[in-house]
Amino acid sequence: MIIVPEKEIAGLVSEEQAFKAVEQVFASMSKRSAYNFPVIREAIGHADALYGFKSGFDREALNLGLKSGGYWPGNADKGLTNHQSTVFLFDADTGKARAVVGGNLLTALRTAAASAVSIAHLARKDAKVLGMVGAGHQSTFQMRAALRQRDFEKVIGWNLHPEMLSRLEDTAGEFGLPFEAVDLDRMGADADVIITITSSFDAILKADQVTPGTHLACMGTDTKGKQEVDAALLAKASVFTDEVAQSVTIGEAQHAIAEGLINESDIAEIGAVINASHPGRTSDDEITLFDGTGVGLQDLAVASAVVDLAVERGVAIEVDF
Amino acid sequence: MIIVPEKEIAGLVSEEQAFKAVEQVFASMSKRSAYNFPVIREAIGHADALYGFKSGFDREALNLGLKSGGYWPGNADKGLTNHQSTVFLFDADTGKARAVVGGNLLTALRTAAASAVSIAHLARKDAKVLGMVGAGHQSTFQMRAALRQRDFEKVIGWNLHPEMLSRLEDTAGEFGLPFEAVDLDRMGADADVIITITSSFDAILKADQVTPGTHLACMGTDTKGKQEVDAALLAKASVFTDEVAQSVTIGEAQHAIAEGLINESDIAEIGAVINASHPGRTSDDEITLFDGTGVGLQDLAVASAVVDLAVERGVAIEVDF
Repeated sequence: MIIVPEKEIAGLVSEEQAFKAVEQVFASMSKRSAYNFPVIREAIGHADALYGFKSGFDREALNLGLKSGGYWPGNADKGLTNHQSTVFLFDADTGKARAVVGGNLLTALRTAAASAVSIAHLARKDAKVLGMVGAGHQSTFQMRAALRQRDFEKVIGWNLHPEMLSRLEDTAGEFGLPFEAVDLDRMGADADVIITITSSFDAILKADQVTPGTHLACMGTDTKGKQEVDAALLAKASVFTDEVAQSVTIGEAQHAIAEGLINESDIAEIGAVINASHPGRTSDDEITLFDGTGVGLQDLAVASAVVDLAVERGVAIEVDF
Repeated sequence: MIIVPEKEIAGLVSEEQAFKAVEQVFASMSKRSAYNFPVIREAIGHADALYGFKSGFDREALNLGLKSGGYWPGNADKGLTNHQSTVFLFDADTGKARAVVGGNLLTALRTAAASAVSIAHLARKDAKVLGMVGAGHQSTFQMRAALRQRDFEKVIGWNLHPEMLSRLEDTAGEFGLPFEAVDLDRMGADADVIITITSSFDAILKADQVTPGTHLACMGTDTKGKQEVDAALLAKASVFTDEVAQSVTIGEAQHAIAEGLINESDIAEIGAVINASHPGRTSDDEITLFDGTGVGLQDLAVASAVVDLAVERGVAIEVDF
């Protein structure tokens, strides 16, 4: 059994490798070569924790296993990350435990890779302005992965707490790009690509603020009740997602579905676009929206890449198990 | 993170320790201090494998985690066990991965401990003859754990393939006890305690073969469709189980429930007997039947005991994770 501790992950996996792993598994999901198992999510009645598993199997890449962990709100006071994740991989040919991989950084990387994949396949080729809604921990991962996908010339940002926007400015600076804090009208008017990465429970961006040709990657909504954009925006946009079943229940599309503004059949899989069985964006005026809900298979795909890299570079811990 | 490899388990945990761990968690379940999460079980469409998780949380013992693995029918040809299990424990206070424990032998030990707990709490004190139905891999674990619970003087056995009964004879011999191969009429007439541990899909023991005062531990039925005893026997007996929800759906009681012979409310938790909130056996003529379906919490309880023992004896592998 191979162990890759959390502290090794940062030095092992690049945005590009995470991108490739996530793109492959989205394509495999759309070909029905990969599927996610039911999600387990439990309020355990101890330490106010939410605990559970996301799991699945990709027959193409032979990735089998789960990400386990959850949210422990008291961790910050102990100097630990509130979100705790560990990925467990199994040998698909024998069922033996294959690897245990720290999953905290991986979760941020695989989520950023998902929106980057959506940008690569759905944003206008001439996109120049990247808009960021949200400036929390995950925003910098999102921005770094996104900036590789187009020749962006500027980053604009909005956050509920504007004092946190310096984080976005610093990250844009790493890429030599100017940053501007904007209001939501300017966000919609100026951005060619908008990433929303918040934990909002109310629509932040209104439908009429978003202009034709925009690509949105809505990455924050992963639970019943959360919402980042107007439900009416999904009726106006071509909607894509990682997994339709999650999109309509716990993703950004849950509200448009509940209000009868769109049907499940209006939502396409990003994997179908990758596989070219769906045309994706068909005009420069189209608004495309990717509802990134986050699936276990993404975690397995990126973790599996990490294990290969860890073995290659000699930092994997091998245990005779 | 602590690793306890499969090969260390045999030297670490005794039947008595497994018994205590399982008895504690059954009691905790009945007090609603412990509960099992939904079971995931998937035919993954590769290597004919069945893969899944059993998981839960015991707030009393602070055991949180899952057993993952499944059934790989091609393993035997590769010199591996077809059933492959690994237990993952988490720190209930922080969500960090705490331990990875080989789960193959543990599964046999925790299943044997469950029937032993039922014998300890439900069999007549003067039980002298132990009857074994089934002589497969798990039968020896069952017998060893059972023989500690009463002053048994003899073991009798039946198996679909009689040539395998030597395994039971050898195990009885380890305890200095005589063994006799019997037919099912003799099994019912002579045994004071009967353990069924088969993978049968049809009733083996008939209701009228079982005599008053017998305690049965039906340990083989853990899936829809499996069956070891007549449904009518459950109507005649006082029925106990580890978890009522599993008993009526995938346990031995599924058939009696489906045929309307008993109701869900007729089935008591073994944990309630341990807690003395249920009287258990009330007369020497009563037939008691324990429907052991197998819950994730048993695995966590025994695995947690193993981790403590491994640390104590210096055989735990500690990894900075």
